Amino acid sequence: MAEVRPSTGWGVVHLMLRADRDAPGAADALAAIERFTATDPQQVIAFSVLGASADLGLMILGPDLDAIDRLVKEVLAGPFEAEYSYVSLTELSEYTSTAEQERARLEAAGAPDVEAKLAEWSERMAKYNDARLHPRLPRRAAIGFYPMSKRRAPGENWYALPFEARRELMAGHARVGRTYAGRVLQLITGSTGLDDWEWGVTLLADDPAALKEIVYEMRFDEVSARYGEFGPFFVGLVMDPAAAFARAGVLEPAG
Amino acid sequence: MAEVRPSTGWGVVHLMLRADRDAPGAADALAAIERFTATDPQQVIAFSVLGASADLGLMILGPDLDAIDRLVKEVLAGPFEAEYSYVSLTELSEYTSTAEQERARLEAAGAPDVEAKLAEWSERMAKYNDARLHPRLPRRAAIGFYPMSKRRAPGENWYALPFEARRELMAGHARVGRTYAGRVLQLITGSTGLDDWEWGVTLLADDPAALKEIVYEMRFDEVSARYGEFGPFFVGLVMDPAAAFARAGVLEPAG
Amino acid sequence: MAEVRPSTGWGVVHLMLRADRDAPGAADALAAIERFTATDPQQVIAFSVLGASADLGLMILGPDLDAIDRLVKEVLAGPFEAEYSYVSLTELSEYTSTAEQERARLEAAGAPDVEAKLAEWSERMAKYNDARLHPRLPRRAAIGFYPMSKRRAPGENWYALPFEARRELMAGHARVGRTYAGRVLQLITGSTGLDDWEWGVTLLADDPAALKEIVYEMRFDEVSARYGEFGPFFVGLVMDPAAAFARAGVLEPAG
Amino acid sequence: MAEVRPSTGWGVVHLMLRADRDAPGAADALAAIERFTATDPQQVIAFSVLGASADLGLMILGPDLDAIDRLVKEVLAGPFEAEYSYVSLTELSEYTSTAEQERARLEAAGAPDVEAKLAEWSERMAKYNDARLHPRLPRRAAIGFYPMSKRRAPGENWYALPFEARRELMAGHARVGRTYAGRVLQLITGSTGLDDWEWGVTLLADDPAALKEIVYEMRFDEVSARYGEFGPFFVGLVMDPAAAFARAGVLEPAG
Amino acid sequence: MAEVRPSTGWGVVHLMLRADRDAPGAADALAAIERFTATDPQQVIAFSVLGASADLGLMILGPDLDAIDRLVKEVLAGPFEAEYSYVSLTELSEYTSTAEQERARLEAAGAPDVEAKLAEWSERMAKYNDARLHPRLPRRAAIGFYPMSKRRAPGENWYALPFEARRELMAGHARVGRTYAGRVLQLITGSTGLDDWEWGVTLLADDPAALKEIVYEMRFDEVSARYGEFGPFFVGLVMDPAAAFARAGVLEPAG
Repeated sequence: MAEVRPSTGWGVVHLMLRADRDAPGAADALAAIERFTATDPQQVIAFSVLGASADLGLMILGPDLDAIDRLVKEVLAGPFEAEYSYVSLTELSEYTSTAEQERARLEAAGAPDVEAKLAEWSERMAKYNDARLHPRLPRRAAIGFYPMSKRRAPGENWYALPFEARRELMAGHARVGRTYAGRVLQLITGSTGLDDWEWGVTLLADDPAALKEIVYEMRFDEVSARYGEFGPFFVGLVMDPAAAFARAGVLEPAG
Repeated sequence: MAEVRPSTGWGVVHLMLRADRDAPGAADALAAIERFTATDPQQVIAFSVLGASADLGLMILGPDLDAIDRLVKEVLAGPFEAEYSYVSLTELSEYTSTAEQERARLEAAGAPDVEAKLAEWSERMAKYNDARLHPRLPRRAAIGFYPMSKRRAPGENWYALPFEARRELMAGHARVGRTYAGRVLQLITGSTGLDDWEWGVTLLADDPAALKEIVYEMRFDEVSARYGEFGPFFVGLVMDPAAAFARAGVLEPAG
Repeated sequence: MAEVRPSTGWGVVHLMLRADRDAPGAADALAAIERFTATDPQQVIAFSVLGASADLGLMILGPDLDAIDRLVKEVLAGPFEAEYSYVSLTELSEYTSTAEQERARLEAAGAPDVEAKLAEWSERMAKYNDARLHPRLPRRAAIGFYPMSKRRAPGENWYALPFEARRELMAGHARVGRTYAGRVLQLITGSTGLDDWEWGVTLLADDPAALKEIVYEMRFDEVSARYGEFGPFFVGLVMDPAAAFARAGVLEPAG
Repeated sequence: MAEVRPSTGWGVVHLMLRADRDAPGAADALAAIERFTATDPQQVIAFSVLGASADLGLMILGPDLDAIDRLVKEVLAGPFEAEYSYVSLTELSEYTSTAEQERARLEAAGAPDVEAKLAEWSERMAKYNDARLHPRLPRRAAIGFYPMSKRRAPGENWYALPFEARRELMAGHARVGRTYAGRVLQLITGSTGLDDWEWGVTLLADDPAALKEIVYEMRFDEVSARYGEFGPFFVGLVMDPAAAFARAGVLEPAG
Repeated sequence: MAEVRPSTGWGVVHLMLRADRDAPGAADALAAIERFTATDPQQVIAFSVLGASADLGLMILGPDLDAIDRLVKEVLAGPFEAEYSYVSLTELSEYTSTAEQERARLEAAGAPDVEAKLAEWSERMAKYNDARLHPRLPRRAAIGFYPMSKRRAPGENWYALPFEARRELMAGHARVGRTYAGRVLQLITGSTGLDDWEWGVTLLADDPAALKEIVYEMRFDEVSARYGEFGPFFVGLVMDPAAAFARAGVLEPAG
């Protein structure tokens, strides 16, 4: 089949799977995951889902939606049924400052060496943006995922706010996120028009308590408190796909 | 059976299907699709659904509801179960200008050659209306679909607005849609009284990112921001029915 | 078993069924329907449900709830599972005018021959009421059904309105309905205390577009716009029970 | 196992069951019901559910939760699956007058023989309270059941009302109920902390229309109109357990 | 696999299970529970769920999420399907007084021996906190569980309240809880970011009526009345895992 590449961003599918311990096909599904991830920059994070809302989860990402779709179908041909899935594209934040805004900020602050500082800033932003659009996800012990939308209620309608108000609200939100830098890696992907929810939040951390702390702290932030609507929450223990399959009972554990 | 033709508009059924890889009957279902589309203007768009809310989808349209119903039943007799379906009829917009309104607009603008311009306008509108009522859907790489209703909440009640207010709100909405002309083809079908939702929006685009962009941009439009209620969103990769069947695992891929 | 007859009204069950093409028992279910309808005034309307929210539907009505319940169980013993069902009783409208109100209206209008007009009116009302309580449903090509309730939200609480206000709102609603006389036959049945919804609306029409038009037009009426809450909508093509069974794949089509 | 008896009230479980006509075990389930009801005051009301939200229902009550739980498990070991269940305890109303309130009322009304009237009242209340806490349910042709909660919305928050206001609202509600005395027997059981809903309403009547009339009339009462939130409604035809099993197709009808 | 220990708190999984009486594997699941609880401080409370929302329940807790996840998977490999699950971590209340607040309170009250009283207070708080973070759950006849969130509605938004206002509201709530000391043991665990709900409430009592009474009384407290949103409620009879398995029909009852 022909590739289907979005003009901006990579495709992402979060799959939450129920395993049928008596059905065959786990080895084929595992081989399909390995074939997929053999092509750079295609990635898969596998995890055992805590609780019983699903048995295991896969976060699949890459630039070609057709390759992602083929992998999803090969996985579902195995001993799995989807309990939940979420489709999104990586995307830039529309609320990051422009170079002109940053220059104005530096000048207003009376900073020396404005040009050099701006060059540094530009490099930092380029890296940040590239990490959002073309992420290379590190391995952490735990993963959290939830989809969300912005509220459109009378009196609390995100989409009726002017851009500047939204930018300021998001800036405060981002500041909370930055206090968790190092402890929690956050990836926001966009799904308006593609999924029932508008954004997906993927969190990676070695300390599972950090997943609770960051979301709890953000809930007091006005963006979440007044404008956030949240979908189902999933938390998992990250492991190799083969280990996640074995934990779910569809493959013998590795020797 | 006797034909059942609506006095205005064609029937449309969007089917989102789960495939049972072990069940027989795919060849018969495929043959039924081919028989159906052999009769002009009956059409079917097949697509592999991204994520796992369904395996594959079919958008079926034509003037005779009885023929559509027979095809749906023949498909469901195959190795498929419906995860979701949506029933609607193609319809004209009630908010397009009348010839008198267009003449008044031209005269107010002091346009020369009002009669000639009005004739052009009439021809354009006739084509536009015919494309809404009797659509010939082009093939694009990606398809998006979602049903929607207009809000009836205290203070934000679409059905309590006067016609003129609704017409103006819809005109702004349409202007956003026109900026995507060429990139995204949009078909709005109506289902009040026929389905849980009031309208269905089908989007066709070669660039999947465009499906996200147009819906995101429209969400800031007052019609969506204040009056839109949205159902489930589906996005798929368009392919021949046989390819969609093969992708879903119920048919051998073509050689 | 003993009969269970409501002191007022007939029982009505709307059944939306999924057919299991591989299961036996269709002939027995069909025979049970025929036995039921052999007793006047027991009636069954069968239809193939458009889309895939169900495969086929049955609207069953009659004066004895026990006979209706036996038929429902005999149908469910066949190759069917219920996707949805709705239980109600036929009932009179509490908002129709009384003879005194009609006499006052005639006198206020200065009508000659008040007594004769009142006698005509009484006869017309008796027929209308009998058609609501003891309906004989005609055969039309298409059927629509949806359950509904009246809103009980702060500021838009139907049950907090005085009787006179409700009567006036319902009168306006009825006027819209009457403009569809001939095109759409409407039967309202009541289910407060019997079903999750408070009323069921059954629409019969030869033109499926009329089902959309009447419900769409009524949605702008204040009763629907401000006080209507709607459940799932179903639309079907009316056919003989045997044809509906055959269309759903559980019986061979008749020769 | 040890008995588990609430310090106040009896346990009640309403079970709405789907019958699997091909599965065994109906005779064992029936025998378990008979064993349970052989011990006074343990009771079971069996009914065929109208419509298809369930096939049959059982209302099980008695002082020992452990005995009730064992019966529920023995029933579910039979050819049944639960479509819905509701757990509650019988309880007194907290809004009935105290002896002091009744004495004050009698004195204010200038009633002669206050002491004798109060003694009568006390006896009547003792009977009423005993019938609520330790009910002996009579056999009627039809049963209705629905769970409900009191609203906690801004501006319409039952739990923010003072006791006196709630007592007055409930007194008006009770007056409507009393007009149905004889026609409809009502049992209110409590489930806050035990079930998703806060109370369960069981209605018994020989005339099914009475179930609709009482709930419809109460809906205009302020307690229901402004503060009632209602769960699913079930209505059934009461019969012996063996007859309900036979009607559902899991047992041969008695000779 | 490696251990995954939150930096604060223990992991807790509440599992509500449906038993498949015909499937094998109960003995292995039981052995897995016994292996898990053999390691101190890992604990499991087993209970037969009243009603039919589930057959039996397990509350699993311990410091290592990986061990908990392995046990969940071993249980689900047995004759069980999860009807519901809830994932949380034990946590301290953020609203308990600090030593400085307690000292100020004692001094304001003119208490003699402030230092000694403060030392007692500190010891009491340390025990209370340890019981919340590292609970040793006693055996009681009945268990209640429900998840909950704090409301984020316009005008009733918990997350928009200042800390002091929340602390005072929670203090009133805690006072109600303390009046049930001895009768009802309460454990609050946190799940923001981990589960669809923000907190889980587990109640243990010998008298099932006490579970109803405490939740009912708290519902009038402003924290619940205005800010509480409640998920599904479960109530069960606590028994040994083997007895709960036997009650659910997947194991022979012990001799």
